[in-house]
Amino acid sequence: MPNADLLIINAAELVTCAGFSHSPARGADQGRLGIIEAGAVAVADGRILEVGATADLLTRHNLPTDQVLDAHGGVILPGFVDAHTHLVFAGDRSAEWESRMQGKPYLEILREGGGIQSTVEATRAASQDDLLANARKWMRRCLAGGTTTVEIKSGYGLNRDDELKMLEVARQLGAEGPIAVVATYLGAHVVPSDYKDRRSEYLDLVESTAREVAQRNLARFFDVFCEEEAFTLAETERLLGFAQDLGFGLKLHAEQFTAFGAAGLAAQMGATSVDHLERLDDEGLAALKKSVALSSTKGTVAVLLPAVAFHLGLDRNPPARRLIESGVPVALATDLNPGSAFTPSMPMVITLATRRLGLTTAESIMAATINGAHAVGLGAETGSIEPGKRADLIVCDIPHHKWLGYAFGWNPARTVIVGGAVIIPERLPGPGLD
Amino acid sequence: MPNADLLIINAAELVTCAGFSHSPARGADQGRLGIIEAGAVAVADGRILEVGATADLLTRHNLPTDQVLDAHGGVILPGFVDAHTHLVFAGDRSAEWESRMQGKPYLEILREGGGIQSTVEATRAASQDDLLANARKWMRRCLAGGTTTVEIKSGYGLNRDDELKMLEVARQLGAEGPIAVVATYLGAHVVPSDYKDRRSEYLDLVESTAREVAQRNLARFFDVFCEEEAFTLAETERLLGFAQDLGFGLKLHAEQFTAFGAAGLAAQMGATSVDHLERLDDEGLAALKKSVALSSTKGTVAVLLPAVAFHLGLDRNPPARRLIESGVPVALATDLNPGSAFTPSMPMVITLATRRLGLTTAESIMAATINGAHAVGLGAETGSIEPGKRADLIVCDIPHHKWLGYAFGWNPARTVIVGGAVIIPERLPGPGLD
Repeated sequence: MPNADLLIINAAELVTCAGFSHSPARGADQGRLGIIEAGAVAVADGRILEVGATADLLTRHNLPTDQVLDAHGGVILPGFVDAHTHLVFAGDRSAEWESRMQGKPYLEILREGGGIQSTVEATRAASQDDLLANARKWMRRCLAGGTTTVEIKSGYGLNRDDELKMLEVARQLGAEGPIAVVATYLGAHVVPSDYKDRRSEYLDLVESTAREVAQRNLARFFDVFCEEEAFTLAETERLLGFAQDLGFGLKLHAEQFTAFGAAGLAAQMGATSVDHLERLDDEGLAALKKSVALSSTKGTVAVLLPAVAFHLGLDRNPPARRLIESGVPVALATDLNPGSAFTPSMPMVITLATRRLGLTTAESIMAATINGAHAVGLGAETGSIEPGKRADLIVCDIPHHKWLGYAFGWNPARTVIVGGAVIIPERLPGPGLD
Repeated sequence: MPNADLLIINAAELVTCAGFSHSPARGADQGRLGIIEAGAVAVADGRILEVGATADLLTRHNLPTDQVLDAHGGVILPGFVDAHTHLVFAGDRSAEWESRMQGKPYLEILREGGGIQSTVEATRAASQDDLLANARKWMRRCLAGGTTTVEIKSGYGLNRDDELKMLEVARQLGAEGPIAVVATYLGAHVVPSDYKDRRSEYLDLVESTAREVAQRNLARFFDVFCEEEAFTLAETERLLGFAQDLGFGLKLHAEQFTAFGAAGLAAQMGATSVDHLERLDDEGLAALKKSVALSSTKGTVAVLLPAVAFHLGLDRNPPARRLIESGVPVALATDLNPGSAFTPSMPMVITLATRRLGLTTAESIMAATINGAHAVGLGAETGSIEPGKRADLIVCDIPHHKWLGYAFGWNPARTVIVGGAVIIPERLPGPGLD
């Protein structure tokens, strides 16, 4: 056994989320936190070496005090995995958001050049350096809330150069660390206005760009917004098939505005995750359930995004309890984006899931950690506190894990540990509004 | 003019909320932020000395760099005034809250000894030192979010000794600072079970205790929970009259569960604030409107508490827009308490007000600052950035004030200044979970 180089002790509750590295937690397991009381974690070379009782680990690992972090009776959790974000963007849609909150119809906003089109224009106009500088601020805000792995989508470029520019920014963010980045190519976010009457040409462009993305290893996943306003089922099937052949993992924006059949398609094609599901119907649910039953290992993870309806003042939530009761593994993510979910905070998402989706706090924590990790293909690497995994942990300033649901509006993360590096969010330099 | 001892410069927007020190902002003025671009504030002896453009103030006040705080293009706001909290308490109601979220009826919880009764028992059982230690943690969490003045109610003692104990804790918190504390005696929170069949004896007890509270100067306000389950209109009128004679300012928990007529009574008796109003009807609204029209100076402030419905997963909000359109001044507060609103965060309350009450971001900011100050009788002392007022300010890490509504789930307060003392929330010692 290598020598430990960091020991974290005295957690009132060490929430391990252990036992689901090979396949996501589902059904009754969705809430099985694997809590160790008076727990401790030993870390070596950025990986978790040992997990157990504080008394035992203190006996076995004799470290100098500057390598011992005392949780002082707080809660230790796995770092959050935010499995769905659009964190790379330019522009500011606060005025549009406020108009919407004051009752202006979204279609009117679109007619006036607002909506996603304005983000596309701003993102195209921005230099790679400007995009990077803006994204770094959001990475720091994510980290402060305990996110240690983040998925980032392209999709505001909608042409070869600007999609690649976004993915280069995501790659740079991952290289800078400390948060681990999983990139997703979302050229099929929406058909851009200049291709309005040339849809099949745009599909060709998405595919040729996908080929380049694969060659340059710029993204692990391929995502399509499958919806009446975006891409049809047939188009989605064509694109996913193409992407699968290139070796991409598959994701889908599905059933957000209408029950469109996208969840069934995702399940059938073995997508890693199917995201949104606000309008999932019985048929879609049955398809997801069936995929889980058939799969010898994983099945498609349902990624729920409660910040969207909340941000827009809507009461339109996915059937989270039915998904869990059907055995479909559920993950939670922010959907961080300037239009429909302007939050970097996984604690906020848990606050919403417990109040608006009917999840228990324990189910929400699993959804935000190990199941999030599976939703980005990293179930064996992060998302739980088990020997061998990357040492991604949060020390929370709460007396027990239920406070993660119960208390809200403040940041419970006192210390965040990413790959063994100890980060105190409070000591991060400010985002620097220059 | 005294010499400045602190200069805060380079706010993209200095949100002054100025012009409403003598009477709260109402109607169209509710959203009149009085923004100074590229703004700066000079502070002397804990008070605001001068407000203006950065270039001008830098010329006039030549201070060493360690007395100059650069807002780096962020937003400066008045410190938040949280006008309604139950911050002094003992006990943990997370299990009860989770049962409720999972569908358990509140009446069943009450039958099992949960609900407010459990907080009363825990608070009675706690020593003054234990209450103080717990409250200090919450004060730090409030401060981190930018709260510089907080109202604190008693009401979990419900007997002479334990009510006085709570108010002593509030006094101690105020003495420790830096947050300014306004105490409210809420002996009339609910009739305790041991007085169930002796209501008038309990009223006598509330009055005799009130006399002692007044003699010892332990509270500025007197509050009654006027509701079928608590105190009738006639009882409330008796208590408020008694309290008024003792020199207390009046507050009322009104129209939370039923349209009970409490708002009308409050308006008629010249209450400083009337809080909750989720069930305010036309008659109550008319009474509040009339009180505003009649009053030569202030009128009763409506204190809205959107965290309560959110915390409990309910969709029951006060008619905020109608109040503003009727010219009733609106304030926002957390209602921080372990049963129905477990949040210390005024930014979170603004997040909720803009999404669930129909307030604009500007109206919400005024409600959380100057109108909150009026709701605790401190309109001339804090709540806006004007010469002579206490130097209570927040430097926010956002590019303009609309982000206070638009972005959510993270703490925008980078630096909080209370009575001229510069506090960096991030450098506060952790609550210390002992």
